[in-house]
Amino acid sequence: MKRIYLDYASLTPIDKGVMKEMKKYSKREYGNPSALYASGVKAKKALDEARLRVANILHAHPDEIVFTSGGTEANKLVLETFAGKKIIISNIEHSSIIKNAKAERVPVDLDIIKKSITQDTALVSIMLVNNEIGSIQPIKEIAKIVRDANKNLNTEILFHTDACQAPLHLPLYVEKLGVDLLTLDGSKMYGPRGIGMLYVKRGTVKIVRKGTENLPGIMGFAYALEMAEKMREKETTRVAELKDYFITELQKINKEIKVNGSLENSVPNILNVSIPNIDNEFFILQLDAMGIECSTKSACLRDEDESYVLKAIGADSRNSVRLSFGRGTRRGELRKVLKIIEKILQQTK
Amino acid sequence: MKRIYLDYASLTPIDKGVMKEMKKYSKREYGNPSALYASGVKAKKALDEARLRVANILHAHPDEIVFTSGGTEANKLVLETFAGKKIIISNIEHSSIIKNAKAERVPVDLDIIKKSITQDTALVSIMLVNNEIGSIQPIKEIAKIVRDANKNLNTEILFHTDACQAPLHLPLYVEKLGVDLLTLDGSKMYGPRGIGMLYVKRGTVKIVRKGTENLPGIMGFAYALEMAEKMREKETTRVAELKDYFITELQKINKEIKVNGSLENSVPNILNVSIPNIDNEFFILQLDAMGIECSTKSACLRDEDESYVLKAIGADSRNSVRLSFGRGTRRGELRKVLKIIEKILQQTK
Repeated sequence: MKRIYLDYASLTPIDKGVMKEMKKYSKREYGNPSALYASGVKAKKALDEARLRVANILHAHPDEIVFTSGGTEANKLVLETFAGKKIIISNIEHSSIIKNAKAERVPVDLDIIKKSITQDTALVSIMLVNNEIGSIQPIKEIAKIVRDANKNLNTEILFHTDACQAPLHLPLYVEKLGVDLLTLDGSKMYGPRGIGMLYVKRGTVKIVRKGTENLPGIMGFAYALEMAEKMREKETTRVAELKDYFITELQKINKEIKVNGSLENSVPNILNVSIPNIDNEFFILQLDAMGIECSTKSACLRDEDESYVLKAIGADSRNSVRLSFGRGTRRGELRKVLKIIEKILQQTK
Repeated sequence: MKRIYLDYASLTPIDKGVMKEMKKYSKREYGNPSALYASGVKAKKALDEARLRVANILHAHPDEIVFTSGGTEANKLVLETFAGKKIIISNIEHSSIIKNAKAERVPVDLDIIKKSITQDTALVSIMLVNNEIGSIQPIKEIAKIVRDANKNLNTEILFHTDACQAPLHLPLYVEKLGVDLLTLDGSKMYGPRGIGMLYVKRGTVKIVRKGTENLPGIMGFAYALEMAEKMREKETTRVAELKDYFITELQKINKEIKVNGSLENSVPNILNVSIPNIDNEFFILQLDAMGIECSTKSACLRDEDESYVLKAIGADSRNSVRLSFGRGTRRGELRKVLKIIEKILQQTK
């Protein structure tokens, strides 16, 4: 029996075209991009082209793109750059931000964010899409708050957003978002693992990443980001319909099943629900036994007891489950999942 | 015309078997290794097996293997761990060590190393094989010096070696080497780029690397390391013969061509020579025009004027060229290279 994967927000399988790109650029004819000879020059040219392609999607300049080993490293680079300075983050950031920063944590509330910015603030970091509940943060509005603060307080506060969960369903126009720094990760968008990037706006701060460039990874990343952009509108419509269908049917099973976070202001591929009277870890194992794969919370929190994100939004983290949809998800799959959930819940009564 | 690549020390092409491994573990059936469901468990199992396979080659324990995004990150993790403490490094370390550390630089001289260790030393980091001249450092002897110091001074100094250039031609038996920490990189051993590892001896120091594990990269890395170990003896003999042949014939062209570093105490795949009356950058371009790819120095030093490694050993960095051999190198190729070098040098006279 084919298993049903509903954990795309944790990890997307690598696109076949991405693998092909990686294979192509793994060959000897693409040498070290820092070398002076022909294959090095060829590699450098490919690298520059990838950088340009990525920049185009962000409507940025190629020299504003820093490739990293993933979203975690990109976030780490940002935090390291501002080490010892005052950093404001939200209380629903990804673990790579929450755990690393000696930062001031605030809820995603425009008034509170505004009030917490002071003369000595150096960085504000708020994620674009939350990985557990799929909520879209008001990045443009926060950017405006930071801009206003810079004007009024005569500060030079930078604004970073972790956008790892965004590229499949939201445009990444950095100027429209109003961010100075933006993180992406290959493994959340059908791209290679072990590759990510940081957008660093010209004239803000200098961030350099050392080591030989991972050319196959970078080429795969550029390809994946372009594919995401190309498929975005169609996939967003398709997945939104699936999510609508799923939640409607789910609440027919038990009308007390609650969506964690707002349905309107979220990406279509992430659904987090609170199901009465279940123990979510056991529920996940029951689903797994029936061939369905989803998670209770971010896999990055494996060793934590409960989700700080759900806590922050006042949801019950002990009966909450995250289902995330992707390119492989079909209505037929979801129909099966609904049937199985119905059976499990009947037994639980 | 097929180009001749003699820059394997800078970057090895990715082995076909490695690509196959990476492709296999990029599929949906291998989910996030931190997830609780079947594909996550399958991924975790694969990860654990890879860790064990890598550990076996190092004669280490699986829990002593930390996978990173490459040699540079592994080295960075080590230096970060000892930030603010006294670190002793050699003056021929890779740029990722030399540039990052506020360390005391010493020549690779046992007496000097011994004398520079003091009560407040926390780390000694000396590379196993130098990437520019191929010299093998006396790691066992240095390990003994560190052990003796720990006994006599009652210190707990750790010993790290950057072994990125070693796995193709030297055994990596960590206990015999006597090291506490050891760095490897996939891209120097026909493995994936963007993946490396750090061996951290039990009971020494806690080093954790955050972020979702790059499973395809790790599986490719394990495969590449096993292949390196399997082919090591045969390839070492084969490449040593090629190097012998090449340097003998090269010195027939001009007997004043000098080997930089010792021929005896070096890996067979790296040859660094000083050629009288050439400008090495121009020479490299001449070779490139004739389809031959090699380098003047480490590609990681692209923007530096000259090689600090050659300076450290008293060689002339302006007329020095590094040729490095690999699995694709054949005697016929080298014959062509020798002919072309002969012609270029005739014109130079």
